[in-house]
Amino acid sequence: MSPLVECVPNVSEGRRPEVVEELAEAVRSTPGVRLLDVSADGAHHRSVFTFVGPPQAVLDAALALAEVAVRRVDLRQHQGLHPRIGAVDVVPFVPLRGATLEDCVALSRTFAQRLWERHRVPVYFYAHSALRPERRWLPNVRRGGFEALLREVATPERAPDVGEPKLHPTAGATATGARDLLIAWNLELDTDDVRVARAAARRIRESSGGFRGVQAAGWALPGGRVQVSVNVLDYRATSLRVLYEAVREEAERFGARVVSTEFIGLVPAEAVTEVAAAALQARNLEASRVLEVRLLE
Amino acid sequence: MSPLVECVPNVSEGRRPEVVEELAEAVRSTPGVRLLDVSADGAHHRSVFTFVGPPQAVLDAALALAEVAVRRVDLRQHQGLHPRIGAVDVVPFVPLRGATLEDCVALSRTFAQRLWERHRVPVYFYAHSALRPERRWLPNVRRGGFEALLREVATPERAPDVGEPKLHPTAGATATGARDLLIAWNLELDTDDVRVARAAARRIRESSGGFRGVQAAGWALPGGRVQVSVNVLDYRATSLRVLYEAVREEAERFGARVVSTEFIGLVPAEAVTEVAAAALQARNLEASRVLEVRLLE
Repeated sequence: MSPLVECVPNVSEGRRPEVVEELAEAVRSTPGVRLLDVSADGAHHRSVFTFVGPPQAVLDAALALAEVAVRRVDLRQHQGLHPRIGAVDVVPFVPLRGATLEDCVALSRTFAQRLWERHRVPVYFYAHSALRPERRWLPNVRRGGFEALLREVATPERAPDVGEPKLHPTAGATATGARDLLIAWNLELDTDDVRVARAAARRIRESSGGFRGVQAAGWALPGGRVQVSVNVLDYRATSLRVLYEAVREEAERFGARVVSTEFIGLVPAEAVTEVAAAALQARNLEASRVLEVRLLE
Repeated sequence: MSPLVECVPNVSEGRRPEVVEELAEAVRSTPGVRLLDVSADGAHHRSVFTFVGPPQAVLDAALALAEVAVRRVDLRQHQGLHPRIGAVDVVPFVPLRGATLEDCVALSRTFAQRLWERHRVPVYFYAHSALRPERRWLPNVRRGGFEALLREVATPERAPDVGEPKLHPTAGATATGARDLLIAWNLELDTDDVRVARAAARRIRESSGGFRGVQAAGWALPGGRVQVSVNVLDYRATSLRVLYEAVREEAERFGARVVSTEFIGLVPAEAVTEVAAAALQARNLEASRVLEVRLLE
């Protein structure tokens, strides 16, 4: 069986459906690749594409999508909740069956080289591809967003890993890297006080002493609610259930409640099963007991 | 892609590990078949084998397993919690991708014919293979177990569908049929009063006015606890979460609690996801958002 790699590019466009469709079509029309999910979010003004395939096909699809994003997105016009530095903001490569993190590091290197050569978009390596220790952590790469990076890109601390220390005028810069599967998850609270979302984010994120592998931010949503936006980088260490409870408790301290939650992209069976097993007090419900997981073997 | 069928034979042997292993090996050594799960239960004196493959291979494996069971199990010596009529008690065939219930009805017909020809075990058709309406429902076929059927098999009401109206002296009779995926689930309560388990079973089972597609029974377990044993025949209609809550509530009326639950065999992703989505208030968590389910496509 050929190795299988997942790629989950985040593009700074979530409001024009025709552009999201053009981006999706660039992936779909790449031979050998299967587009599994498109999550477009208007408030974030951002879309997340999940596709899988053999390494070379996944690389081709990522470059085809990047070509559309560079041509169609103008960051100077872009405003959204989510921090971003580029039209093609971040391009993670994830090893699935038969592939390793090292394979994905190599893919990210080639992707960066091509992106710079073809489009003059400078690139930062993050996660397992990071060349500087502080860049392992994506929020460091993205600090201050496009606007801050415009001013700081020429400083040694913020110099790109590939390309010249100068942003692409409309497409900014791109972060790419190899990482493990993560879960992207938003929890919506029934308050318009952004401080509640920020307090909940602080409570759970690792950098404020919260849970291992958790990144989180609190934002106000248009329409008078707030959102805790969470990345679970190590879902084996930190359960979704535990995070849900912590956010619920923290919101309750302010008299607020979780109204609903939503996932961006796909979720590994193990994380879902853990939640269901706890809810049912099941002592033998693991991913390996899920029929579809076993059929994949 | 060749059609894929699941077969989940229940054999009246759950105490001798070497016999369970011999049964498993009969399946494993059949070319083209993958044995996904073996759940052996000492209290029930019963084991459940889950395997998948193309129809012909699955038929071969089911017959290979039946040969071992007929040779190794003596129902005259068999006592367990679970009602049973045969050494090879029930052999369901389930359509997975590319297969239909009709394909599985045809498989059950061939299986029945061979079982009778080779081992002189008479066979009853149940579920979608039933030739009499009342036999669609397995508890009707199994009523009173081996001991009652010994006395009643010669009556017109209980005549086998294949073979002579006479049980195999040690292997009894077998039920076989085509059905959809089901979930087999036991909930354990912290009381030694079997009436609590029976009340909970009555509360949830369809035949007592409970939930659609649910069969349930209450039993005393060795060691002073009781168990509600549940088959969820239509997990799209009836959520595991709803059943859990109903059992919990009914137990509470008697001052008892659910201590733990366990699944027998495999569970479809859709049922697991539904529970997790409710626990996390997730508005977009469905089986199609689980990575492994999408990779199967």
